[in-house]
Amino acid sequence: MKLDALLTSAGINIGLCVFFISLYSVIRKQPSNLYVYFGRSLTQERNKPNDSFNIENFLPFPGWILKAWGPTENEILASVGLDAVVFLRMIVFSIRIFSIAFLICMFGVLPLNYYGQEMTHNQIPHESLEVFTIANVKEGSQWLWVHCLALHIISFSACTLLYFEYQRISKLRLDHVTARPPKLSHFSILVRSIPRLRDMPLDDVIKNFFITYHGMSYLSHQRIHRSGAFHKIITNAEKACTKFVRLRAASFDLKRRPASYRCGLCGGTSRSYDLYDNASDVEERRTPLSRSDSGKKEEDCSAALVFFKTRYAAVVASRVLQSSNPMLWVSDLAPEPDDLYWSNLSIPYRQLWIRRISIVVATILFLFLFLIPVTFVQGLTQLETLQQKLPFLRDKYSFDIFLFLLQATFFITYVLTSGWTSLCAELVQCFPLTYNLLQKYVFRKKLDDPNMVPTFPYHTEVPRVLLFGLLGFTCSILAPLILPFLMVYFLLGYLIYRNQMLNVYRTKYESGGQLWPVVHNSTIFSLVLAQIIALGVFGIKKSTVASGLVVPLVIFTLLFHEYCRKRFLPIFKNFSAQALVEMDREDEMSGKMEEIHLLLQSAYSQPAPKDKDEDDVVDGGGDGGAENSASVI
Amino acid sequence: MKLDALLTSAGINIGLCVFFISLYSVIRKQPSNLYVYFGRSLTQERNKPNDSFNIENFLPFPGWILKAWGPTENEILASVGLDAVVFLRMIVFSIRIFSIAFLICMFGVLPLNYYGQEMTHNQIPHESLEVFTIANVKEGSQWLWVHCLALHIISFSACTLLYFEYQRISKLRLDHVTARPPKLSHFSILVRSIPRLRDMPLDDVIKNFFITYHGMSYLSHQRIHRSGAFHKIITNAEKACTKFVRLRAASFDLKRRPASYRCGLCGGTSRSYDLYDNASDVEERRTPLSRSDSGKKEEDCSAALVFFKTRYAAVVASRVLQSSNPMLWVSDLAPEPDDLYWSNLSIPYRQLWIRRISIVVATILFLFLFLIPVTFVQGLTQLETLQQKLPFLRDKYSFDIFLFLLQATFFITYVLTSGWTSLCAELVQCFPLTYNLLQKYVFRKKLDDPNMVPTFPYHTEVPRVLLFGLLGFTCSILAPLILPFLMVYFLLGYLIYRNQMLNVYRTKYESGGQLWPVVHNSTIFSLVLAQIIALGVFGIKKSTVASGLVVPLVIFTLLFHEYCRKRFLPIFKNFSAQALVEMDREDEMSGKMEEIHLLLQSAYSQPAPKDKDEDDVVDGGGDGGAENSASVI
Repeated sequence: MKLDALLTSAGINIGLCVFFISLYSVIRKQPSNLYVYFGRSLTQERNKPNDSFNIENFLPFPGWILKAWGPTENEILASVGLDAVVFLRMIVFSIRIFSIAFLICMFGVLPLNYYGQEMTHNQIPHESLEVFTIANVKEGSQWLWVHCLALHIISFSACTLLYFEYQRISKLRLDHVTARPPKLSHFSILVRSIPRLRDMPLDDVIKNFFITYHGMSYLSHQRIHRSGAFHKIITNAEKACTKFVRLRAASFDLKRRPASYRCGLCGGTSRSYDLYDNASDVEERRTPLSRSDSGKKEEDCSAALVFFKTRYAAVVASRVLQSSNPMLWVSDLAPEPDDLYWSNLSIPYRQLWIRRISIVVATILFLFLFLIPVTFVQGLTQLETLQQKLPFLRDKYSFDIFLFLLQATFFITYVLTSGWTSLCAELVQCFPLTYNLLQKYVFRKKLDDPNMVPTFPYHTEVPRVLLFGLLGFTCSILAPLILPFLMVYFLLGYLIYRNQMLNVYRTKYESGGQLWPVVHNSTIFSLVLAQIIALGVFGIKKSTVASGLVVPLVIFTLLFHEYCRKRFLPIFKNFSAQALVEMDREDEMSGKMEEIHLLLQSAYSQPAPKDKDEDDVVDGGGDGGAENSASVI
Repeated sequence: MKLDALLTSAGINIGLCVFFISLYSVIRKQPSNLYVYFGRSLTQERNKPNDSFNIENFLPFPGWILKAWGPTENEILASVGLDAVVFLRMIVFSIRIFSIAFLICMFGVLPLNYYGQEMTHNQIPHESLEVFTIANVKEGSQWLWVHCLALHIISFSACTLLYFEYQRISKLRLDHVTARPPKLSHFSILVRSIPRLRDMPLDDVIKNFFITYHGMSYLSHQRIHRSGAFHKIITNAEKACTKFVRLRAASFDLKRRPASYRCGLCGGTSRSYDLYDNASDVEERRTPLSRSDSGKKEEDCSAALVFFKTRYAAVVASRVLQSSNPMLWVSDLAPEPDDLYWSNLSIPYRQLWIRRISIVVATILFLFLFLIPVTFVQGLTQLETLQQKLPFLRDKYSFDIFLFLLQATFFITYVLTSGWTSLCAELVQCFPLTYNLLQKYVFRKKLDDPNMVPTFPYHTEVPRVLLFGLLGFTCSILAPLILPFLMVYFLLGYLIYRNQMLNVYRTKYESGGQLWPVVHNSTIFSLVLAQIIALGVFGIKKSTVASGLVVPLVIFTLLFHEYCRKRFLPIFKNFSAQALVEMDREDEMSGKMEEIHLLLQSAYSQPAPKDKDEDDVVDGGGDGGAENSASVI
């Protein structure tokens, strides 16, 4: 691949990005797309744009960039949450470290690569990309120390930045733990695998155990029930009924024009829902009774939430081994009431570890199965390129470098296409937009359910950003041309993710920054991988000094990682006695403790039918439930 | 190697073993070797053999075998300790599983291997050993299912036996934890990395912290001091002085004939020690004063032992994260007073993790450095054997099996020579015997210091027995001829180790059976390795069915391991709240708690000069010490 080809590709991609961003600037302002681009703002009932026609709505103004840039980190923390801040810090870290790498590699390493061989250079646009990589430095060159120095500077800078980020996020996490209002999960533990005694009800077994062994601090408990077959039928019937009720309610948009459902294609009006109205009303009124009836047929699943009088007592109970049989009375801190996925609690503890292992095995198998075709196809393209474009290099170097450096040019184009495009797709929200348009113009429905507003897809976006970090670290000193494209990716990403977090996604779950250790570990992995690849390349280039200097760097990086693991990781895994005791004291002094104890009695109760249904929609359906059998002592 | 050569080797080794065992039967009865063969019994002041001449003392009676066989497991548990029982259970497990393997493989697999090829057999003694291995089964043979079945039976039996052993040893461990007298370590935690405040003494810092955050249960604490240079000189002087005092005391054996030290070679009498007598007495009397003087110059090392009112409180304090900075107030359960190695406590916590990593890295490096020459030498012998003895096989199979099966015959001779010999050496105690004889007849000294009696060398014997287990599992279905030799090793080992534990070694440390998880993990590793090797061999033998059947076996074994890790391992890592609370209640009811609290004040105090010197001898010398600065609230 030649430089002009790359620049052409870059031009096309820049054009596409500009087009998508302009498109976004326009369509975000259309009232019909309100729920796609301002879902979050709508759930918070503010900034509702008006419907009136305005010429500005059809002009691509970049005002949204200023709005996205505006809020400070504290504002984002307050409105979006800690996870969002951590995600943005990850991008800020990437911008910082790759700015340093950019400066060093573009002005230090790149010229060395370019003049690494005594050869007649073409005009720069017509140069092959390989001329800009370390492949162009001749074997045993005296100048490889520059690459080695660059690697050292990048590694030390990355470690320093990582350290301060970890420190800062640890502080944010500690603040998050101690933040007001008090978290009810701090007072609660989830106990699984409770043994059954033949002559004692489960409630008494639980009560007895905790009064006996945690007598001073036990407050109450709440059993969790597994739904039986009968209960499942009732629950499904209820679900269907609640949906009808909701649909009927939704068909009368009181604030705006009254709308009856019509099929957008045939135009017919549907009044068939009316038939169900009375029936569903009756059903709704009958529900509490039928629930308590069916409750008798529920099976216990030997799990319970146990509440304690203080946070300290709860964390102690979650940390110690309860019974001499470690498979009984397995206890752990409970999640926040909103984060509890009830139907999962009915899985017996004995199955849990097998399920976990199955997931790990399945993931590994899937990875390998996925790798096979990718490697095969990749291999084919590489071999073809090799034969067609670069026959002159084949004689000079061993085949392996080759493969790597060809990968490097592939990765540059990957950043250009996949990286930039994914950001634009994220901004424009192609799939929700299409869905919205379909719902609106074909099915004539209006999306206005605030629970349908999605949460931020950390599970796809974190790995994506980390992957580009990995590419940056491994390629920076070997093929520095990747860095400008990466910088554009991260800078654009920072703006776009900020915008999306502030406008599009709602915050439903909050892990309290627990994704940072993952980010830290992955970055260390990327760094060490980059160092090992550099070690190999220096070895092949017959620079023993450079290779020798990389070994202590690898050791340093691993030691740094181990230090951070000791220094910061426990903050993300446990609560400290100091913090908990101080919070407990404060609440006791201010007399808020009784209030919290009262709240605990109802916080974890089974959601009412409406809420339950909403949970099912978001969580993908579940047949679990819990009956509040809390008994206060 | 042919069978008759192996049998000759076995004959020679059996002869040597019989010779050593007979030798042992005689020399153990000589009064001069009392401290070599009955060190343990002597420390317990029982069964002192008399000095009178007896012709029986010079006849090799096997009476010791009956004595070693005699005691039940409970008796060994009571007199020697749990670690010894666990060690013996490991050998019993080996005997059981390899008895099963012996029956299956000698009568099922061995004949199949022997008749695996259509070939003219020599007379059995002249057969090559390879004829008895799986190498002799032809490719794609229909009979490989027998090998596969044998592997399945051995694996399932091993898992079943391992499960019941783990269950039994877990019970023993639980009993050990709750056994009387109460263990003071259950009430104590070791806190490292205590932060210093400029305007507050360290004692107050510790007291304040634990009263604030563990106020209900904090009892007292005891700082640990690091010795300064001045203190070190004083300590060394004290050590020398105490040695002189001891030597002088020892020179008057009151019960037997008075003995003055004479050099056995020149015969001169030494009275030069008398010169030091008064001086050392004065020194001894002055010691407490000088110690307290030098104590003022000691540096604090920011570590302390903290005592709690109940076991439960101590275990809670050791389990929770104390401070929001995980590198401060690092707490862990304290060891028993006898097991504490004081000079180690003065290592700053920040250094500990680096030291640990260094040890791991050094071990790995050492392993690799050790592997290089061993592999090289092994490779040479294998290639020579290959060229000289087995040229006909070279054409038949690939080189890799070859290497493995040649290893198998090597391992058979290894069991014969190294295994059996090591047991005989253990029995005869060659090195201590020589040392004793030298001391007695050359230096004219009498060994009578009970602290010189060694403890059982678990660190060498456990890996040795595990190595033979590994050889057994990996070779059993491939080269079953190893099994009779292994069975002899384990049976002989069971007797000899029992004898040595009952007579030779004293029990100083007790880990409470914590070596069993190591044994369990190693055995699972051996099993899985054996299965993977079998998988490879079946693959090379082109038996896809057999290979296919081994895969679920590997998965089953790994799942079994994971289950045991969940079910039993926590018992060896933590104490359960249930057990601790019950013990606390019992002690409170019986009024023993106050007694325990009083004991705690002095249990961990710095050893008196005499005891200190003994500790130094056993622990290899140490310059640590602690001053009891316990403050009771």
